[in-house]
Amino acid sequence: MTDIPRTARPTMKDVAARAGVGLKTVSRVVNEEPGVTEDTISRVQAAIDALGFRRNDSARLLRKGRTASIGLVLEDLADPFYSPLSRAVEDLARAHSTLLFTGSSAEDADREQELVLAFCARRVDGLVIVPASEDHRYLEPEIAAGVATVFVDRPAGGIDADVVLSDNAGGTREGVAHLIAHGHRRIGFIGDLPRIHTAAERLRGYREAMEDAGLPVHGNWVSCGPTAPGRVRAAVESMLSGPEPVTALFAGNNRITVTAVRVLADLPSVVALVGFDDFELADLLRPAVTVVAQDPGQLGRTAAGLLFQRLDGVAGAPKRVELACRLIPRGSGELPPVP
Amino acid sequence: MTDIPRTARPTMKDVAARAGVGLKTVSRVVNEEPGVTEDTISRVQAAIDALGFRRNDSARLLRKGRTASIGLVLEDLADPFYSPLSRAVEDLARAHSTLLFTGSSAEDADREQELVLAFCARRVDGLVIVPASEDHRYLEPEIAAGVATVFVDRPAGGIDADVVLSDNAGGTREGVAHLIAHGHRRIGFIGDLPRIHTAAERLRGYREAMEDAGLPVHGNWVSCGPTAPGRVRAAVESMLSGPEPVTALFAGNNRITVTAVRVLADLPSVVALVGFDDFELADLLRPAVTVVAQDPGQLGRTAAGLLFQRLDGVAGAPKRVELACRLIPRGSGELPPVP
Repeated sequence: MTDIPRTARPTMKDVAARAGVGLKTVSRVVNEEPGVTEDTISRVQAAIDALGFRRNDSARLLRKGRTASIGLVLEDLADPFYSPLSRAVEDLARAHSTLLFTGSSAEDADREQELVLAFCARRVDGLVIVPASEDHRYLEPEIAAGVATVFVDRPAGGIDADVVLSDNAGGTREGVAHLIAHGHRRIGFIGDLPRIHTAAERLRGYREAMEDAGLPVHGNWVSCGPTAPGRVRAAVESMLSGPEPVTALFAGNNRITVTAVRVLADLPSVVALVGFDDFELADLLRPAVTVVAQDPGQLGRTAAGLLFQRLDGVAGAPKRVELACRLIPRGSGELPPVP
Repeated sequence: MTDIPRTARPTMKDVAARAGVGLKTVSRVVNEEPGVTEDTISRVQAAIDALGFRRNDSARLLRKGRTASIGLVLEDLADPFYSPLSRAVEDLARAHSTLLFTGSSAEDADREQELVLAFCARRVDGLVIVPASEDHRYLEPEIAAGVATVFVDRPAGGIDADVVLSDNAGGTREGVAHLIAHGHRRIGFIGDLPRIHTAAERLRGYREAMEDAGLPVHGNWVSCGPTAPGRVRAAVESMLSGPEPVTALFAGNNRITVTAVRVLADLPSVVALVGFDDFELADLLRPAVTVVAQDPGQLGRTAAGLLFQRLDGVAGAPKRVELACRLIPRGSGELPPVP
């Protein structure tokens, strides 16, 4: 990038010259310090308005050791799951007169680290991170230097830090038990990459629910991998064929559920479905889709709330907050097994 | 907010002391300047790693007159329409090693100005703005000082600036003409607040399509206002009752379309529907929803592309880019009129 000269931006010196006062007086007015007469304040204010002078917050805040900015690292800015989470973090930041840097890791550990360290180089006061990495020791110098850090949706790896999670295993256990209560014995699980904490927890919840009911889990009833539609389609088709076809599916997140709905819409078989995560219009599909809902807004609010508590000086050991999920029966999860 | 002392953060001086070299040498290594031996570089690098030293980008960039950051102001971070737009702006920012501040105006002109000026006080290099305000003269000193500014989705008010828009009137004209081609004569329009540029343009497109076909527009066939579900529900119900009930609806944005789908699902009448903006699962509803699709990712890419061209020194008069919309027939817009 080339540097555009910023000579056109008026300085405090310009304001002082125009108002016919000293630089210190302008500084007092701008920083609302006492000891300036009403008349001088109006003269300085008139000069500020005429020149379009703006205080340089970067320099001022840097001198104070604070920047009144925080960084939010998501997996993907374009995933609708993160929209209410972002908005909740933004609302709290606004309430604390703090600006928000945002960025996506795209589920790439290196990209997460690059983004986080870029935010730290910009001297953010704090970070809210949906981690893609499994090792956050790279953050230790930043945390030691006073950067408040809260993890959300997934825990930190290798360091002890504040974290806000959904009860992924418990929510999945409830969803799978719901299918079992409706008569299903052969239930498939399609999940995200198992190295992702939430995906591993949901798989654990599925296995526990099956075990609690004394049900076996056949090899091709579990499929974990990327949420790409082609992979999910192949998994559904494989689970519905063979000698032990499933009569119900548990979909491990909203991307997988949406693809499963599409695949099932094309098939003659009636298959029950419960999805993890709620999504818009789930209630208008036929059958309407039963889900285990997280509250992404509440995740964001809780994480940002914890962050600003830390910034306000609340000390103590790292906290782990776990939010309950909620089963919302709508039709697809209450279909009886069709052999 | 209280100030946490940042004494723990290692400085260049600490690095110099540990490496047993002068401050200038550390600075040369950090800034990759020539004139330092390989051996000294490794000693400084070892000290940097041991201390966890990070360069302070804020100060360095401020000296250069650049901050390698841009601000993105949306109407609502939580509206899924803006998710691909944000992601596209982020991708271009990343390609230019630039960080992204984001914020929502919540359709409030004061909040937009507050956010934009907060970004400017942080010395962003540029701005991408979905405006809520109708008067952007407050930005003139910033633009004069070199802050590149591109408006997206809606034009600036009171100033001449780069803007990237969808062809809102043309897209709506095509959608309404599509309903007319399928035999509809009494078509209702439910839009957003008419002070919003896109809403006014879509209303204009509706009126033009009706006029082109020589069709009258009755008083209660047009309803403009907030996208709150209650308001939209009342508008649909009003248009379907009375002496001249409509047989088709044009919904002015995706929030309105989703509510219209919900309302129509509860009613016995069969009413054709075309919505402005595509949305996820529109194809899986019954009937599947015909839409006039914008490309929010392309809006974001084009706006950010223009911004970085300006930052790279491309001069010239402000540009106005208009992107075409695309009619996607899926079923709801092809239903015949039912009297």
